[in-house]
Amino acid sequence: MINKKLPQIWYGGDYNPEQWDHPAIWEEDIRYFKEAGINVATLNVFSWALNQPDEETYDFSRLEMHMNRLYDHGIYTCLATSTAAHPAWMARKYPDVLRVDFQGRQRRFGGRHNSCPNSPTYRHYAGKMAGALGSHFKDHPGLLMWHVSNEYGGYCYCDNCAAGFRKWLKQSYHSIDRLNKLWNTRFWGHTFYSWEEIVVPNALSEEGEGNVSVFQGISLDYRRFQSDSLLECYQLEHTVLKTFTPDLQITTNLMGTYSELDYFKWGKAMDVVSWDSYPALDTPVSLTAMTHDLMRGLKDGKPFMLMEQTPSQQNWQSYNALKRPGVMRLWSYQALAHGADTVLFFQLRRSIGACEKFHGAVIEHAGHNETRVFRETEQVGRELQQLEDKLIGARITSRVAIVYDWENRWALDLSSGPTVSLDYVKEVHSYYRAFYRLNIPVDFISVEADLTGYDLVVAPVLYMVKTGHAKRIERFVENGGTFVSTFFSGIVNEHDLVTLGGYPGELRSLFGIWVEETDALDPAQFNHIVMSKQWGKLSGHYQCNLLFDLIHSEGAEVLATYGSDFYAGSPVVTRNTFGKGSAIYVGSSGDQAFTDGLIETVCNERGIVSLLPTPDGVEVTERTKAGESFLFVLNHRSEQVALTLIDQYNNLLTNEELAGEVTLEPHGVLLLKACL
Amino acid sequence: MINKKLPQIWYGGDYNPEQWDHPAIWEEDIRYFKEAGINVATLNVFSWALNQPDEETYDFSRLEMHMNRLYDHGIYTCLATSTAAHPAWMARKYPDVLRVDFQGRQRRFGGRHNSCPNSPTYRHYAGKMAGALGSHFKDHPGLLMWHVSNEYGGYCYCDNCAAGFRKWLKQSYHSIDRLNKLWNTRFWGHTFYSWEEIVVPNALSEEGEGNVSVFQGISLDYRRFQSDSLLECYQLEHTVLKTFTPDLQITTNLMGTYSELDYFKWGKAMDVVSWDSYPALDTPVSLTAMTHDLMRGLKDGKPFMLMEQTPSQQNWQSYNALKRPGVMRLWSYQALAHGADTVLFFQLRRSIGACEKFHGAVIEHAGHNETRVFRETEQVGRELQQLEDKLIGARITSRVAIVYDWENRWALDLSSGPTVSLDYVKEVHSYYRAFYRLNIPVDFISVEADLTGYDLVVAPVLYMVKTGHAKRIERFVENGGTFVSTFFSGIVNEHDLVTLGGYPGELRSLFGIWVEETDALDPAQFNHIVMSKQWGKLSGHYQCNLLFDLIHSEGAEVLATYGSDFYAGSPVVTRNTFGKGSAIYVGSSGDQAFTDGLIETVCNERGIVSLLPTPDGVEVTERTKAGESFLFVLNHRSEQVALTLIDQYNNLLTNEELAGEVTLEPHGVLLLKACL
Amino acid sequence: MINKKLPQIWYGGDYNPEQWDHPAIWEEDIRYFKEAGINVATLNVFSWALNQPDEETYDFSRLEMHMNRLYDHGIYTCLATSTAAHPAWMARKYPDVLRVDFQGRQRRFGGRHNSCPNSPTYRHYAGKMAGALGSHFKDHPGLLMWHVSNEYGGYCYCDNCAAGFRKWLKQSYHSIDRLNKLWNTRFWGHTFYSWEEIVVPNALSEEGEGNVSVFQGISLDYRRFQSDSLLECYQLEHTVLKTFTPDLQITTNLMGTYSELDYFKWGKAMDVVSWDSYPALDTPVSLTAMTHDLMRGLKDGKPFMLMEQTPSQQNWQSYNALKRPGVMRLWSYQALAHGADTVLFFQLRRSIGACEKFHGAVIEHAGHNETRVFRETEQVGRELQQLEDKLIGARITSRVAIVYDWENRWALDLSSGPTVSLDYVKEVHSYYRAFYRLNIPVDFISVEADLTGYDLVVAPVLYMVKTGHAKRIERFVENGGTFVSTFFSGIVNEHDLVTLGGYPGELRSLFGIWVEETDALDPAQFNHIVMSKQWGKLSGHYQCNLLFDLIHSEGAEVLATYGSDFYAGSPVVTRNTFGKGSAIYVGSSGDQAFTDGLIETVCNERGIVSLLPTPDGVEVTERTKAGESFLFVLNHRSEQVALTLIDQYNNLLTNEELAGEVTLEPHGVLLLKACL
Repeated sequence: MINKKLPQIWYGGDYNPEQWDHPAIWEEDIRYFKEAGINVATLNVFSWALNQPDEETYDFSRLEMHMNRLYDHGIYTCLATSTAAHPAWMARKYPDVLRVDFQGRQRRFGGRHNSCPNSPTYRHYAGKMAGALGSHFKDHPGLLMWHVSNEYGGYCYCDNCAAGFRKWLKQSYHSIDRLNKLWNTRFWGHTFYSWEEIVVPNALSEEGEGNVSVFQGISLDYRRFQSDSLLECYQLEHTVLKTFTPDLQITTNLMGTYSELDYFKWGKAMDVVSWDSYPALDTPVSLTAMTHDLMRGLKDGKPFMLMEQTPSQQNWQSYNALKRPGVMRLWSYQALAHGADTVLFFQLRRSIGACEKFHGAVIEHAGHNETRVFRETEQVGRELQQLEDKLIGARITSRVAIVYDWENRWALDLSSGPTVSLDYVKEVHSYYRAFYRLNIPVDFISVEADLTGYDLVVAPVLYMVKTGHAKRIERFVENGGTFVSTFFSGIVNEHDLVTLGGYPGELRSLFGIWVEETDALDPAQFNHIVMSKQWGKLSGHYQCNLLFDLIHSEGAEVLATYGSDFYAGSPVVTRNTFGKGSAIYVGSSGDQAFTDGLIETVCNERGIVSLLPTPDGVEVTERTKAGESFLFVLNHRSEQVALTLIDQYNNLLTNEELAGEVTLEPHGVLLLKACL
Repeated sequence: MINKKLPQIWYGGDYNPEQWDHPAIWEEDIRYFKEAGINVATLNVFSWALNQPDEETYDFSRLEMHMNRLYDHGIYTCLATSTAAHPAWMARKYPDVLRVDFQGRQRRFGGRHNSCPNSPTYRHYAGKMAGALGSHFKDHPGLLMWHVSNEYGGYCYCDNCAAGFRKWLKQSYHSIDRLNKLWNTRFWGHTFYSWEEIVVPNALSEEGEGNVSVFQGISLDYRRFQSDSLLECYQLEHTVLKTFTPDLQITTNLMGTYSELDYFKWGKAMDVVSWDSYPALDTPVSLTAMTHDLMRGLKDGKPFMLMEQTPSQQNWQSYNALKRPGVMRLWSYQALAHGADTVLFFQLRRSIGACEKFHGAVIEHAGHNETRVFRETEQVGRELQQLEDKLIGARITSRVAIVYDWENRWALDLSSGPTVSLDYVKEVHSYYRAFYRLNIPVDFISVEADLTGYDLVVAPVLYMVKTGHAKRIERFVENGGTFVSTFFSGIVNEHDLVTLGGYPGELRSLFGIWVEETDALDPAQFNHIVMSKQWGKLSGHYQCNLLFDLIHSEGAEVLATYGSDFYAGSPVVTRNTFGKGSAIYVGSSGDQAFTDGLIETVCNERGIVSLLPTPDGVEVTERTKAGESFLFVLNHRSEQVALTLIDQYNNLLTNEELAGEVTLEPHGVLLLKACL
Repeated sequence: MINKKLPQIWYGGDYNPEQWDHPAIWEEDIRYFKEAGINVATLNVFSWALNQPDEETYDFSRLEMHMNRLYDHGIYTCLATSTAAHPAWMARKYPDVLRVDFQGRQRRFGGRHNSCPNSPTYRHYAGKMAGALGSHFKDHPGLLMWHVSNEYGGYCYCDNCAAGFRKWLKQSYHSIDRLNKLWNTRFWGHTFYSWEEIVVPNALSEEGEGNVSVFQGISLDYRRFQSDSLLECYQLEHTVLKTFTPDLQITTNLMGTYSELDYFKWGKAMDVVSWDSYPALDTPVSLTAMTHDLMRGLKDGKPFMLMEQTPSQQNWQSYNALKRPGVMRLWSYQALAHGADTVLFFQLRRSIGACEKFHGAVIEHAGHNETRVFRETEQVGRELQQLEDKLIGARITSRVAIVYDWENRWALDLSSGPTVSLDYVKEVHSYYRAFYRLNIPVDFISVEADLTGYDLVVAPVLYMVKTGHAKRIERFVENGGTFVSTFFSGIVNEHDLVTLGGYPGELRSLFGIWVEETDALDPAQFNHIVMSKQWGKLSGHYQCNLLFDLIHSEGAEVLATYGSDFYAGSPVVTRNTFGKGSAIYVGSSGDQAFTDGLIETVCNERGIVSLLPTPDGVEVTERTKAGESFLFVLNHRSEQVALTLIDQYNNLLTNEELAGEVTLEPHGVLLLKACL
């Protein structure tokens, strides 16, 4: 995504100069931005009310003044469309912009991300605002790209949404009979005779707090519908903006594993993926890495934008620890290491009032550059400038893919039984971590992805198998691929209807097993995975919990059996040869040692090797571009670590030549280019 | 309750063939039902919307086809009236059928058990549906009995209920002055001058979540009113059905210790009690036993129906463990052992969609009979057929009764102070367990029951003493009975107004004590019950907690005193001679060892003996009929146990002769008929 | 506050004879009151509905009869205005009296404290009721004082409140531009163009449960507005009553550290402060002491009234333990010891129904005087009579003040970040305890208070520094005062807008430090305060947690540094010389040992000495009047303790002469007058 205007790593972030009506402060801002190597500012994220005082009036003079001022100092603008919070006057005059919440209550003006996605008023004025901005700024030389709205999310349950839902259902099902069948409405007397009888599923009808539903079909479709509705809002602005600036990229900032939107669908609609990364002090660094990889996967590995991260502190967690010295820098490089081409902050200057006043910023309330945070920002800025355009567009190559599916997660969360403790993201992360500790690159792919080109595909808890997916997996394995999945897979189709004939349904012949029953116990109760014999790194036994598939082999090799309970001795891990490849099934939630051992064994068998073996806590990734390789070595530990390089490298951050044994500082980073 | 059509133990359960429009599946169903010895299917539980597409049309052709098909294969139908979930079209056209919830929000269509019991529309169409079914099926030879609605429960707070409540109050209190007096409305300025001023007690007026109320009189009466309102719905259908089939039994399925309905009142209105038993993996088996006994008590010991149990797994618990091998059989016999004449399942074939798709069934998603669950079902079916009509109508004889009162529980839950941790069911269970471990049969009786014929009556936490109850208890004791009650008894009358003059109020002379105060501590804090001297099995000291009555003896013998705190040395357990009998008062919540010792001691004194002494975990009950005795011996342990029979028996399940030392398999069952 | 009618310690409490229509009971009441030495009864707290059956009718005959009867027996009446719970007829006819709750739901009739403070109906009829009572009873000889409403509290969110809020805002901000600026509304697109666009902040707009807000400015002002609205209701009645009885004192009963009302503002409007003290079994006695001192501070040290305490038990806690023998007496003297001139109970006779029937009373349900509770009441009554008017009006003298500010607490609670665990009251209590254990008297003062006359002022977590406050503190220190504050101080102004330029903002030069950042960790994680050298009682190291200010000294002496983490070695406790005084800053939440050591050290340096050194658990306070000193010695322990008196005293409770070593009984009390 080399951008001709600014062909280097973009560095900067959200900037809200309208919160200060002081030219002196604006001047200071510019001065510090330049000191810090900042070259991009995101403007106008929340200024709808400010720039549009009524239905007819648009006043961009203030915004233009700031864009000019920035551009005059070499700083480009990522221009937001400001539609993530409607004006108070609009809420007052046109209450249809206000959401009705999960409890069925119409909200009043307040907060942000507050507009009903199916409000005619909202869509009308959001489109108009995009057009007004496009028209006004299309030729501004400082305009670098568009940032539509902000962190789309949340559902609405108003009458406009109900009408929209019925329309969406008609388009999806065509006839009410088909809907009745695919929602299985003869259960609990839910037979519908007209579309008008269908109401939105919330706390007043089918659902309870925490993704509890008594009618999964309805609830699943409502999530699809709301995700689509919000996406339509994005697309509406996207389309308008394209008419003015066909060559500028357009994005909106996503939120990683945020559950409510089907980001694979969103990724297709965006020119470039961008996202906001807010790990807490106790977030595993592997989970941050995984989320970067997931975001990269939304557009098939295309580099993405780190749109927001805090330079220091958040405000909305329970305990908002400071990022320790060096950690902001480390995590900035971690983003680049996983495919980001930008390092952007929320926020450049800290607000003085309202709920984000205790969120960190490049320029803190002290108002000057003599702060730890500023110094660290400055260092990163300096380093990124040195890198010029070297990394821009560089890709990550992986022989391993993990399947991730938002709809699968929704269906798992919504289903009643067998356990309330199944956490899809946690199960996925458990497998991801096994690759992460080996420094083996992983792609995240959707259930629609082409599997060709991968050696190993892992699909944890593939509960929902959509039409055609099983066949694609079978072809992949037949052609020599290795496929790994887990307990509670192959259960339902995309309508959350069970595939009859025996679990894991459409995956049954692939795995060569039949799962007769699935036991569920309090996660504090454990069984054991007892290896039938040593297999690579796996031997002896491991703990497992959560769910316990009772498996019959129908041809699969039994790699391990349960250690206790009435199914002691029955299979828990199996491997089935299928065509030229094999399919491994893990019938319970193993402990990390098991999953690590399993993945290492499979990788060894497939010849999938580490980029560089490292001590625990040291992460390695590689980006390549035009035959050049960039190796990121990230020390997540608070101690120095030593490691041994295999080749000879140039550390791009210091221009040192490195080879053999090298030492990383606490939270230190190497960015190594192989010496040719 | 020998039924001439099917004079044997009914075996089968809920069957929803309308969920599959596949004749092939229906044929498979019949084949497997016959293999499993199934002779009864409950049809039409949730098909209102399917069978009545609009106000005027009733189409029972599908239902009749299934009844015919079943009957042709010797399977009878327990026919449900389908009124537990109104159709969506009805909710749309007649919103008065929708409940207003505790938060004051009118619900929309969704879920089940969703109709306002005071909705004119609901009552009109529910009655019409019962009539239509009665008229259509009254002469069907396969029609075995009626199953009205399903698991009645939940309260409504709509305007129709408010109007109904006022009417109910007028009928109960006649004058507003009397209501003011009995609700004590001069407290907190609640004086009412007209019935219209009274509003329903919910989160918008007098109550909070979790049975919190600031005005107990109103809240208590609202529970009575709602229980009565739902009962009127039952009775409405019952009456209609009787006009068509005066000789068929009518029931609705209850839910054990479910708190919201006064089941003793319901029991009177039903021809036979039926209930749904869903213990979790960690439910004490003694609690299941107790609940069976409670349900049997609703109709004075008449045999009841086990209407639902799962063959394997539930879906709505947090962790839905499989029933371990043998446990479904064991618990089926446990139901029979406590007076059930049926063994019925929810469900015969598992749904493929919506919220019960992960609830176990006789025919699982695999769709065939090669499953553990099916094999166990088959075994039980075979055994029950062998039993023919031997057990049908057999009764349980008990010299012990435990008093249970739903209104007492409501009043305890609603009252503010002295502790939030008092759990009526838990206190009752603690006393029940003491009999259970001795294999001493227990009847559950209401506060209206005749006590004649019992030797020992236990009434844990008899907080509310209704008019006349104290006198009946006194007569019972005067005539030689032994009465046991506990702390916080005798406090209020049926209006939750305190009986003045000293606790335990109307029971004070019976117990020969005065309770001056009641201390309440965090249940993690303990005092001790220190025995004054050895008494039977009781000596030394025991832990107690929760509440601590500060007792003065007014003639009672002090059996034990407190061990610590400022009331150390003051009475905690007393016994008063009253006429020919005695009354024992336990002033705190003793640990199980204490309660076990107390009950064993009292039983020994009264010559109430065990049916058969057994090791822990082995339960024994006896049913008798026409001079014949049937002894159930149930091994709830996962190990073999040995025990010694006193007489010589025939095991009806194996036709073996047994005497002396016998061995029970893990989860094994003996059904012993004495050899005469 | 010597009252000519009854110049002694008032003893009695809430009395609701209207709950019994039995002259015999009323006669018993009087008899027992006299036995117990009761001389004041609070009547009419909740009888609005009883005394006013409709818009026009007022019937005080019943009330007058009770006042007469009491007065005839020498008992005076504290007459309540009964406006804390509107009549049901009013709620039905004029729904505007009903509050709209935080969820936006209009409530229905129920509970108490249920009127919207901005309801025209409520204000009209509350004023009329005050007038009717004033007119009727102004000349009654038994009328001792007025008790307006009861425990004002709770907020309303109705349309009348919304309109009132806008009016209040106009008066506060004059222009919408100024409001926009001071609410920082350019954040998140909140720019308002008209007052009508502003909606109340609740769960439908800006807030969530638990003082969560996304817009602090709005939420903070709404708390001010609601506190003011309720205060206007008080003032309305106050003004009316004054027209009838200009010489009688008027009060309303407050609730200690209750968060929703700005009691310093309320205190000014009341003739005398009264409050209801309900410690639980596990409430630290120092917290009760602190709350008494806080209530005394509301009117600059003027004696206050203990309006309610329970003689034995409460009903609304989770576990309502009895007050142990002697504890009611002990806590009664504790109230006097801290400046109360009355000892009043809720309640004199226990209700028989509704939610306070399990709340203790002087006359219990037993209905006679042969109870522990009555005997203890009697003893206290006898003792108080002996004291005659000796204590009345006696004051407490203190050289130490602690700053307490309701608005500061609101702002802390509302702010998002840096930690959810900051508890203002807990932090204040931690400092208070350090004085308490030394028996050093403390005044509580508002942020507006004159600091002259104090040697030491402590302001824990002075997050919000209002206009002029910093200057007043600086003058205080310049003139020789010692000022102590803590972490997270000096952050915002009264609009919750951050003071730019570096924390602690306006206090920065006073403290001679700059706080660059504040780290927040889970409170289970600890750092250490490492003393730079021994300082008085402080040496070695202490634990600290919660928040960690990263401090740069700008001239202050570094007394202690952090022991670990990346800020190990940087300052955590500093002292700055400023003029003739010094300012101490504590940058984290130290453990109690640290705070105790700090306060003892500072007191030693300032020559602030203990009234009397005592063992732990023995509290000493002093009240003085006309040159006479009354020393209260309170043994909060359950064991006897010995202590040594310095002077010779007369124990007013026993008329014994005491000197040298004396022994206090468990929960014993000495009230010592120095022998001159």
